[in-house]
Amino acid sequence: MHLPPNPKAVLIDLAGVLHVGDEAIAGAIPALRALRATGRGLRFLTNTTRTPRSTLVQRLRAIGFEIEDDEVLTAPMAARDYVRSHGLAPHWLVHPDIAPDLGASSPNPTAVVMGDAGPYFTFEAMNTAFRLLASGLPLIAMARNRYFRETDGLTLDMGAYVAGLEFAAGVTATVVGKPAQAYFEAALSSLGVAPHEAVMIGDDVTDDIGGAQAAGIAGILVRTGKFRPQDEHHDVITPAAVEDDFAAAIIPFL
Amino acid sequence: MHLPPNPKAVLIDLAGVLHVGDEAIAGAIPALRALRATGRGLRFLTNTTRTPRSTLVQRLRAIGFEIEDDEVLTAPMAARDYVRSHGLAPHWLVHPDIAPDLGASSPNPTAVVMGDAGPYFTFEAMNTAFRLLASGLPLIAMARNRYFRETDGLTLDMGAYVAGLEFAAGVTATVVGKPAQAYFEAALSSLGVAPHEAVMIGDDVTDDIGGAQAAGIAGILVRTGKFRPQDEHHDVITPAAVEDDFAAAIIPFL
Repeated sequence: MHLPPNPKAVLIDLAGVLHVGDEAIAGAIPALRALRATGRGLRFLTNTTRTPRSTLVQRLRAIGFEIEDDEVLTAPMAARDYVRSHGLAPHWLVHPDIAPDLGASSPNPTAVVMGDAGPYFTFEAMNTAFRLLASGLPLIAMARNRYFRETDGLTLDMGAYVAGLEFAAGVTATVVGKPAQAYFEAALSSLGVAPHEAVMIGDDVTDDIGGAQAAGIAGILVRTGKFRPQDEHHDVITPAAVEDDFAAAIIPFL
Repeated sequence: MHLPPNPKAVLIDLAGVLHVGDEAIAGAIPALRALRATGRGLRFLTNTTRTPRSTLVQRLRAIGFEIEDDEVLTAPMAARDYVRSHGLAPHWLVHPDIAPDLGASSPNPTAVVMGDAGPYFTFEAMNTAFRLLASGLPLIAMARNRYFRETDGLTLDMGAYVAGLEFAAGVTATVVGKPAQAYFEAALSSLGVAPHEAVMIGDDVTDDIGGAQAAGIAGILVRTGKFRPQDEHHDVITPAAVEDDFAAAIIPFL
């Protein structure tokens, strides 16, 4: 895909693009400020599902980023919308920190909906979900990311647990976060912008770049966060551009 | 495949065929006694990897089965043999109950070797294994069973965790328990019997029956344990016979 020279909107992944853990990626804070000053629409799309949006935004502000709650779309929000629009009674397999935003699990669930429970992916929680899936319930996953970069190295993301339940129960999950087209469309719709008028900046070649480009949005892969050199030579996905980091990625739009 | 009318050896899965939890499957205790009286060679092949062989055998005896330690081949034994014959330094991701039989993990491992850790599949243990795999180590799995039947229902087996690590790290596990051909061959070799002179009785259409038949051994699927009606109509695997239970399966050999 070709990069629009003057995009109306910039969609931005958070972890690995703006920050790693509680550290800003070099140059990202002033770069975001400069990008914002151009008046372009901004939306932040994250597949992080261990933390509620309000906490994510507070952390980003504490690091030094200017960011508003309404600019952030999260995979748990996408899951809540999906459950509501499909009339599902969810069994939530999620991190306790996001549970209050989602409500209680139904005593008679019609779907298993999972986020990144991290340390709360206990055998008991997985087995409960497995039994529901084996009895015929569908599996909705907020994301299926393979790993993310923490300050101490690559860390297992929820995709492993999605793949595990899929294998054991013989089901295929519906993913509602990135790379789902509806998730990117929701971001564009909230800005009133068409796909060819936007770009997506991310460190995940499949979920950020592959997902955006499948939705008609040019993707810029950055060489930070979970990026690994082989990501530049992906079998199927060719990013519209590859840049060293977020600051380098947005310079053409200033 | 055709069932040999007068097999020299009978290979038998344990959980779901002879017993479920601490209960014998109806008729299995006298059936095994009668089969043993025919003088045929017997080997028990189990993918259970949460429990050491000595404990498995004690439990079976407590239930009422006549069974000797030497007749039982376990997936952890197969893993130990594989590690030794391939000169690997293992990082063991296993249940603490079988750890003493396997020895300590190497401080400089050259392979991740996993069993069914069950409740000990903590996020931390999974993440440690993931990081080793992401750094290039191969993955050896004792089994990749999807589930087994406990007294209170189907229960998640280690396959979910194998599939999860495979997905996250982009690797493919080598399985050393059933359905690995070498595992069935080790059983035959210990009896000095050729594949066409043996039968395998199991409740798992892929690992027991598919594995045995790939090794040239006719498989008898029983409708107990994890058996589900759709297993009789598997896409690829056609058991040499399907019988209601172990007792029905061995009657022709008495």
